[in-house]
Amino acid sequence: MTLERLVIRNAGQLVTLAGSSDAPKTGAGMSELGIIEGGGVAAEGGIIVAVGTDEEVERILRDRWGDPPWNATVLDAKRRVVMPGLVDPHTHLVFAGSREYELEMRLNGATYMEILQAGGGILSTTQATRAATEEELHQESTTRLDQFLLHGVTTVEAKSGYGLTTVEELKQLRVARWLNETHPVDVVSTFMGAHAIPSEYKTDPDGYVDLVVKEMIPRVAEEGLAEFCDVFCEAGVFSVEQSERILRTGAEYGLASKIHADEIEPLGGAELAARLGAVSADHLLKASDAGIRAMAEAGVVAVLLPGTAFFLMAPFARARDIIEAGVPVALSTDRNPGSSPTESMPIIMNLACLNMNMTPAEVITASTINAAHAIGRGRAIGSLEVGKQADLLIMDAPNVPYLQYHFGVNPVDVVVKKGKVAAAGGRRVE
Amino acid sequence: MTLERLVIRNAGQLVTLAGSSDAPKTGAGMSELGIIEGGGVAAEGGIIVAVGTDEEVERILRDRWGDPPWNATVLDAKRRVVMPGLVDPHTHLVFAGSREYELEMRLNGATYMEILQAGGGILSTTQATRAATEEELHQESTTRLDQFLLHGVTTVEAKSGYGLTTVEELKQLRVARWLNETHPVDVVSTFMGAHAIPSEYKTDPDGYVDLVVKEMIPRVAEEGLAEFCDVFCEAGVFSVEQSERILRTGAEYGLASKIHADEIEPLGGAELAARLGAVSADHLLKASDAGIRAMAEAGVVAVLLPGTAFFLMAPFARARDIIEAGVPVALSTDRNPGSSPTESMPIIMNLACLNMNMTPAEVITASTINAAHAIGRGRAIGSLEVGKQADLLIMDAPNVPYLQYHFGVNPVDVVVKKGKVAAAGGRRVE
Ligand SMILES: [Zn+2]
Ligand SMILES: [Zn+2]
Repeated sequence: MTLERLVIRNAGQLVTLAGSSDAPKTGAGMSELGIIEGGGVAAEGGIIVAVGTDEEVERILRDRWGDPPWNATVLDAKRRVVMPGLVDPHTHLVFAGSREYELEMRLNGATYMEILQAGGGILSTTQATRAATEEELHQESTTRLDQFLLHGVTTVEAKSGYGLTTVEELKQLRVARWLNETHPVDVVSTFMGAHAIPSEYKTDPDGYVDLVVKEMIPRVAEEGLAEFCDVFCEAGVFSVEQSERILRTGAEYGLASKIHADEIEPLGGAELAARLGAVSADHLLKASDAGIRAMAEAGVVAVLLPGTAFFLMAPFARARDIIEAGVPVALSTDRNPGSSPTESMPIIMNLACLNMNMTPAEVITASTINAAHAIGRGRAIGSLEVGKQADLLIMDAPNVPYLQYHFGVNPVDVVVKKGKVAAAGGRRVE
Repeated sequence: MTLERLVIRNAGQLVTLAGSSDAPKTGAGMSELGIIEGGGVAAEGGIIVAVGTDEEVERILRDRWGDPPWNATVLDAKRRVVMPGLVDPHTHLVFAGSREYELEMRLNGATYMEILQAGGGILSTTQATRAATEEELHQESTTRLDQFLLHGVTTVEAKSGYGLTTVEELKQLRVARWLNETHPVDVVSTFMGAHAIPSEYKTDPDGYVDLVVKEMIPRVAEEGLAEFCDVFCEAGVFSVEQSERILRTGAEYGLASKIHADEIEPLGGAELAARLGAVSADHLLKASDAGIRAMAEAGVVAVLLPGTAFFLMAPFARARDIIEAGVPVALSTDRNPGSSPTESMPIIMNLACLNMNMTPAEVITASTINAAHAIGRGRAIGSLEVGKQADLLIMDAPNVPYLQYHFGVNPVDVVVKKGKVAAAGGRRVE
């Protein structure tokens, strides 16, 4: 059997993002996209084998495959942008149900407590997720993954955290693994039993932390169900001390640390992330200057989630300050049913640009190579370089700034996953 | 020849917006959507012939068409939202070129004057539009109309205003007429020669107003090229006095008045709109309380353009105050290459909800029946009622709030235009 071959030619701008596989881009580096005008890329067996101008790619392929015809799928990019597939490094993908009526309540002035008392909030999703079978969760999540794919996402991180019992957390993670096996989008799993304190432990939060540390983390590690451990470090949820205990235990079991940090109050989550050498600290709407500096020194990726601020009508994270402090920034949908019900990375990128003043180039870096680093995949995906996975997009745009200029419209035309066309013209290709 | 027949059944929520064909909805009325649960709608020859529960529609159709089978296209809405086609009452549809590099300049801190000096701004679009042939303009605009259609817009208003000479203004309006003839989306034309002062008249703005009043308006009326006359009433563009002169002349020639009012400074545009009995006053970011009250008394529709505020990173219009004052509110993309380069009414609706605090129900009213009234079409489109044009949508959403909840994702599945399926699953149907 010959390996599947793909060639894309005639990109107006081939956005390679080359040269940052070892570490994420920071500061002015975030604006360096490694663009090749009139470029192309080729893949064999799902791996990139040539990147360069059309002439360079042709030369490499003649050396490798002989004279044409090559028995390859050849796509004409028609002078448009070709770029790496988008990476979404922070989602709560696997859950049941939706919570649209809470939006209505909020618009009519309801407080968070009033929504909780009306049966809404995160614990209502926990109830629905517990009640769902693995098949039902797989089906609902597949619909979401299809949307991610159509919006250009080729790898997505997925957190547990709507189970909140050992059995239910494992169930969510098993569905994530199953999705990874059945869907073209790669699913990277994070254990987040410490997403909320379940009602059963309302009066004994430390008892729940014990359960997470002594039972859940060992089981998750034993079954190999996650790569990362995450915790919602926030006033009234998990304290800095509890978060540290959970993340240190996770690390002992081989789970790299992530943290929901300083979203609502400046609790010191950014500082904790730096102290633990976490892979990423996420949200950071209220992160302190000291916390941001500490993250820069420790090389922690800041995952910013402007969709959540937009949907909750809250102030946005200080992206410019964070970039200028030298922290590598990534972007994500934060897809979840309560505070960011979207699968569209393109709209997140628009919000990052127009509400957080990130430039079109920074936004691309933050949604590809830096996002890959935020889930420990910087060496495998996030840029177009020989040897990397052939996950890439042809965009309906002649240049990079156009992607943020022509806002609110999905600019993704063709999605290539592991060297095969997975979606085109707004539809999945089987 | 039998007339083409269409039946849609099994809507989860059939949003009729019935009862406001004579006047737009105001205040609490904007929240009344006339929803029928488990509803259906039928059309014959492009006109709605039945609306009601599935049982009621079936009864009406048996009376009208006899026993089934009916030789009709029958669509199952699968318990989703069925609603009127979206109406976009304010666009600058016909132009050449794009201006993505101005966004980059703005993000890097460039002022409006610096952008002008670098060859950007509205007059650069005028240059490009003057240089384009009618064929080229028709082709570029068709691409945009396709996007409008895929995002659920079945009728769009289109303004001239990038010609700024008699010949070039007529050219733009002829292209709009041609688009109306060739594209499924209905295009309603507005003459807006008073969109900017062309460089040729920089030192003689009143001379340009003379040209608009004495030459352009009579020619436009003579050739029947527009229904409305619009003017950019703003400090440094057209004064209240100049605007009044232009709009009164337009009215003498049978062109109903619209006005770009109080966008950048509170100049009194809202007051002028009320005094002239304009059909709509648009933008209104800086409209005064008195101006808003006057609009309510005169029944002028407020067309709000949150995409423009979003893209220009400016404060939004006071939608809540305007609704509470009793002014009927409509929404629009303001599609133009400088300040709102989007064809997505769904994203405009998301912005209206999350940035202007309009409820999901108000947003629907503002994008259908009230938008229809803003272009004098309240009796023909904008609601699902017997005798109206069969322009309607099947949405990928189980209920109205879900449309604003699942943000950033195009929720339009099927677009029916004049009783025929014009788009489905993200693609045009020929
Ligand atoms: Zn999260
Ligand atoms: Zn306008």
